[in-house]
Amino acid sequence: MLSDNSTVAARAQTVVWESGAVEMIDQTELPGREVVARCTSVDDVIACIKRLAVRGAPAIGVAGGYAVALAAIAHDPATDREGFDHDVARLRAARPTAVNLARMVDRVAAATTDAASALAAAHAVRDEELGASTAMGEHGADLLLEMAGDRPLRVMTICNTGGLASVDRGTALAVIQTLHERGKLVEAIPLETRPLLQGGRLTTWELGRMGAPHRLIVDSAAASLLRRGFADAVVVGADRIAANGDTANKIGTFSLALAARHAGVPFVVVAPESTVDTDTATGDDIEIEDRDDDEVSIVRGVQITPPGTRTINPAFDVTPVELIDALVTDKRIVHFRAGETLDDRRADDARDRTGLSQQKELG
Amino acid sequence: MLSDNSTVAARAQTVVWESGAVEMIDQTELPGREVVARCTSVDDVIACIKRLAVRGAPAIGVAGGYAVALAAIAHDPATDREGFDHDVARLRAARPTAVNLARMVDRVAAATTDAASALAAAHAVRDEELGASTAMGEHGADLLLEMAGDRPLRVMTICNTGGLASVDRGTALAVIQTLHERGKLVEAIPLETRPLLQGGRLTTWELGRMGAPHRLIVDSAAASLLRRGFADAVVVGADRIAANGDTANKIGTFSLALAARHAGVPFVVVAPESTVDTDTATGDDIEIEDRDDDEVSIVRGVQITPPGTRTINPAFDVTPVELIDALVTDKRIVHFRAGETLDDRRADDARDRTGLSQQKELG
Repeated sequence: MLSDNSTVAARAQTVVWESGAVEMIDQTELPGREVVARCTSVDDVIACIKRLAVRGAPAIGVAGGYAVALAAIAHDPATDREGFDHDVARLRAARPTAVNLARMVDRVAAATTDAASALAAAHAVRDEELGASTAMGEHGADLLLEMAGDRPLRVMTICNTGGLASVDRGTALAVIQTLHERGKLVEAIPLETRPLLQGGRLTTWELGRMGAPHRLIVDSAAASLLRRGFADAVVVGADRIAANGDTANKIGTFSLALAARHAGVPFVVVAPESTVDTDTATGDDIEIEDRDDDEVSIVRGVQITPPGTRTINPAFDVTPVELIDALVTDKRIVHFRAGETLDDRRADDARDRTGLSQQKELG
Repeated sequence: MLSDNSTVAARAQTVVWESGAVEMIDQTELPGREVVARCTSVDDVIACIKRLAVRGAPAIGVAGGYAVALAAIAHDPATDREGFDHDVARLRAARPTAVNLARMVDRVAAATTDAASALAAAHAVRDEELGASTAMGEHGADLLLEMAGDRPLRVMTICNTGGLASVDRGTALAVIQTLHERGKLVEAIPLETRPLLQGGRLTTWELGRMGAPHRLIVDSAAASLLRRGFADAVVVGADRIAANGDTANKIGTFSLALAARHAGVPFVVVAPESTVDTDTATGDDIEIEDRDDDEVSIVRGVQITPPGTRTINPAFDVTPVELIDALVTDKRIVHFRAGETLDDRRADDARDRTGLSQQKELG
């Protein structure tokens, strides 16, 4: 595996296939150093996944897909099926909780007869992710401009939901990027997102890279700044959306939603349709992962608390659907505040036949 | 000036007069090292004030009072009034914005005829601060137990409002300490309080020192944990309280108040009566100080953002009185939520004569 730091600034995408290798921006080095990890083998890709050089379900999925092409180069499936299958199995297991990794690896492997077909299938996975991000960005920007009036906007967001977590553009940050490209962004206001500071480290870096004006805030300043009129809209991503619309996302999202509603500022969730989990009835059914004390007590290697300080460190929180104005996916916009529900899709299927559809469906 | 680290754990108070010197816990070293700064001259005390070894208006005031005694030892006012007055003037100016420092220095100097009378006046200043903290702790504990039912409580708090900012006990943290001493504290839940981490660095240290069970959280987790039922009450300090009860305090306080009200958890402000500023009509009249980008982008010496990242960094926010259940001072409890106002004091002066007083006055 080679690394170089000469090309990150010019690089359009987080994970790319380049001259027979998978190249990815090494996120563990950001924002201090901009380094590209060049992976020429399945082992290189597995190492990058394990050490979190690449993160975010879509980005990991695409990296895994390209790694199947590397496996097909090393072990021609026509002559060494056993070697190829072994690499595929190791790739699937590189991060057990990343469902999307196994899904994308399986999908590319199933389409593989040789290296060329593997690469074509991996490119297709990437193109789908790009298409979804582009659609979310467009739909979200349309919605915000409709909600807030067609004028340049100041948009607050939490965590990192940009191209670093996907291939390019991302989810909530795709909306901000689209507004910027349309000349409709006054500034982005990212929350730093303790404990792991994805907003302070990664979102700021992405906003800088796209040339979008932005000012960072500590998480606890969001409520007061919303009340004081510093933002026209809040956009956030989602880890899981229950059937009723309750949304699990990075810790701090609920607090932000509460503050937005209190201030009368629109609060919009942006996530791929695949995030909707119809098997989960409400947010009460979503288990909240508690993480290690060290994430809170040690910041980028520096101990900030008395040694041994105990913490309560929930990774996520649940925002009740009552506080969410709308959900934007790659497929549709659901106006929760106007009384629409995720189920309206089914209701619409029926209504469509009688011309009574209320829910806005998008390309 | 001598420093030693052998006595902090046993030390009861932040600032003490000990064997002809002012000794104080060096707060710049916390929580990494526990160091006592021993000041044997006016210059030593000025240096400690300037480098923030001592912080918090009451603590600085008491340190200044004792420093007047050091001045009287160095320059007997009976024979060297000029030298004494010169030291007093330098002390007053050690931190220009600390109104309480000048006030307490002047008060002790006015009572000084020799070193003994200076020391007696400084001890009196200290005793008043101790009395106020004790009163706030008792009144606050009484109130919380009355509000939440007489049972052991889980209490959330923000920033550092303990003995480190005063002489001993403090304001909001005095309430938690009193509950702990009465066997009525299940646990304290301090917010780390970005950007300067006073909760993570100092409040945790004080809670550990008093043997009170506690778990630290990131600021953005407070709202979700309140909603999930992790705390029975929230207590906070105050920097300034407007005539209508709107309260300026550390950034994040408003967000916390909003979350407490949403969760139905009592939210109580604890501050000395001197914090009430009747010249300020409402929170809208309180100017919010914006501080440097570096406070957000650099954590304990480590850069966490891309270089040059701009921020919005308000030091304080304003919590509207509508979100505050009650105010506890050293003199009284004002039940805002029950419709009482700060002005009721004056109304009560009249009513008292007719036996119609509603507001609870405390000794």
